[in-house]
Amino acid sequence: MSQTPDQTTAWVAVDWGTTHMRLWRMATDGTVLGCQSCNKGMGQIEPHAYEGILLDMLADHLPPSAALDVVVCGMAGSRQGWAEAPYAPTPCAPPSIEQATLVPTDDPRLRVHILPGVKQVDPIDVMRGEETQIRGVTARMPDYDGVICLPGTHTKWVRIKQGQIGEFATFMSGELFTVIGQHSVLRHSVGTSGWDRDAFRTACQGATDDATFLMRSLFGLRAGSLLADLSPEAARATLSGLLLGAELAAARSFWGDRDVTIVGESTLSQAYGDALALQGMTPQMMDDEETTLNGLRDAYAQLLES
Amino acid sequence: MSQTPDQTTAWVAVDWGTTHMRLWRMATDGTVLGCQSCNKGMGQIEPHAYEGILLDMLADHLPPSAALDVVVCGMAGSRQGWAEAPYAPTPCAPPSIEQATLVPTDDPRLRVHILPGVKQVDPIDVMRGEETQIRGVTARMPDYDGVICLPGTHTKWVRIKQGQIGEFATFMSGELFTVIGQHSVLRHSVGTSGWDRDAFRTACQGATDDATFLMRSLFGLRAGSLLADLSPEAARATLSGLLLGAELAAARSFWGDRDVTIVGESTLSQAYGDALALQGMTPQMMDDEETTLNGLRDAYAQLLES
Repeated sequence: MSQTPDQTTAWVAVDWGTTHMRLWRMATDGTVLGCQSCNKGMGQIEPHAYEGILLDMLADHLPPSAALDVVVCGMAGSRQGWAEAPYAPTPCAPPSIEQATLVPTDDPRLRVHILPGVKQVDPIDVMRGEETQIRGVTARMPDYDGVICLPGTHTKWVRIKQGQIGEFATFMSGELFTVIGQHSVLRHSVGTSGWDRDAFRTACQGATDDATFLMRSLFGLRAGSLLADLSPEAARATLSGLLLGAELAAARSFWGDRDVTIVGESTLSQAYGDALALQGMTPQMMDDEETTLNGLRDAYAQLLES
Repeated sequence: MSQTPDQTTAWVAVDWGTTHMRLWRMATDGTVLGCQSCNKGMGQIEPHAYEGILLDMLADHLPPSAALDVVVCGMAGSRQGWAEAPYAPTPCAPPSIEQATLVPTDDPRLRVHILPGVKQVDPIDVMRGEETQIRGVTARMPDYDGVICLPGTHTKWVRIKQGQIGEFATFMSGELFTVIGQHSVLRHSVGTSGWDRDAFRTACQGATDDATFLMRSLFGLRAGSLLADLSPEAARATLSGLLLGAELAAARSFWGDRDVTIVGESTLSQAYGDALALQGMTPQMMDDEETTLNGLRDAYAQLLES
């Protein structure tokens, strides 16, 4: 006897970011039946293209009649995305499915919920996608009282207490590493691969201890490669360490006296873990993809309860 | 009676940078007979091309027999330039014509002297071109005891005492302004023109007073334009103020308790002047082109004495 699709795929979880999207087909009990991803992110596609992409990816798994719930987080909910899901203001719990934007679709077999991002008025800041990862953390640790660090192009540091998002701050260190390494004069000195862990640690420690160290040290990477045979690998690790150290100096009010949980992909999380270890911290590490999925699972569970 | 060329052009001064070169034909008494510039900088041309460019620009002014002295400063003396003029180590007077590299030319009517740059061992740093501007300052003020600030893509802060270059430091704020404004997510928020002087001053004061302010504030430009109608002009001036303030915080040991002379083109020098005025300083301003030419004049005068 052949399976009918709606017996297998109970709902769909989607993380739709700026450059990529990832989709999980989920069973009723929360197990993953299949996972697909593509590079059709918010930055690459027009609003009318989203539905077609979902239909293509779910072609063999759509229910014959009833609508399949699709729970989406990330930049698909921005003004330039599929449909705007307005930001929830802090302090707040990670936005729930009740606050989601229900997106009209041409195909009645889809029922798409886009989860909102979170905004902070002062200092002004926004997140979109990370709030769902935060939900993934608090779903696993409801009593967590500490800080979540979400490393990435734009790293977020977020205070959490009793399941609520308190103050948060965004740092552009990751993107600065890319644009300085690729577009400034340092592109001649900084390698595109390789790593020198000692160089990273020395730079990171220096920049965490003294917030002026980054600005004083950047051109030294160029001078060092001109005059002192500084290797491209050491220059790359030093640039990363300077930026991450400057971030830690600026984010001290977040990590200085609280438990820290890092949610991110392994290489970048490891660098943050290294940087915090130099300050005597022992952060807890969580995988970002698993945590995103746990956040989407928790949002869907709410839908069943409502 | 027609003038013979060698009666008019006694020597030639050249500032040959990365992106542009500028050439002045000089009379014996130091007056400028003519000025030309072109965008054939060190970054655009191969070593063998330099001589031809000079010959083209000087075609009507070459002496019939004797060699015309050409005094060159800037990136033409780098390893990737016309011929390497090795760096002089600090502390030192701005390198003199005796330390210049005499470049062999195919045409005997040219005698080309490339002035060396200056290097510092610890913290490691280099300059090439600015040492000639410094010579221009000390030629005018032989007893100057203070700091020279040379704003640009890579701004130099230089301690001067009794005509000697002491400690110096290079800051990449100018280039960071360009790469962050053009290549990061802030390109959507930061205008390419316009200025908001109050926004500049607020950001600059904040970043000078607190060296962590730059890293904490960058993403706020994006959030501010998404949520609070931050104008592209205000975002541009704020980015500039944040970077310049962070530079001042890191360069405090230079300007904190000394006279400051700013040598640069007017718009950028004015921003540095504004930034220092917020700290209660009253820097002296000098035009960069005139100061470069004075440095080259002083180097040529040495040649006559030698």
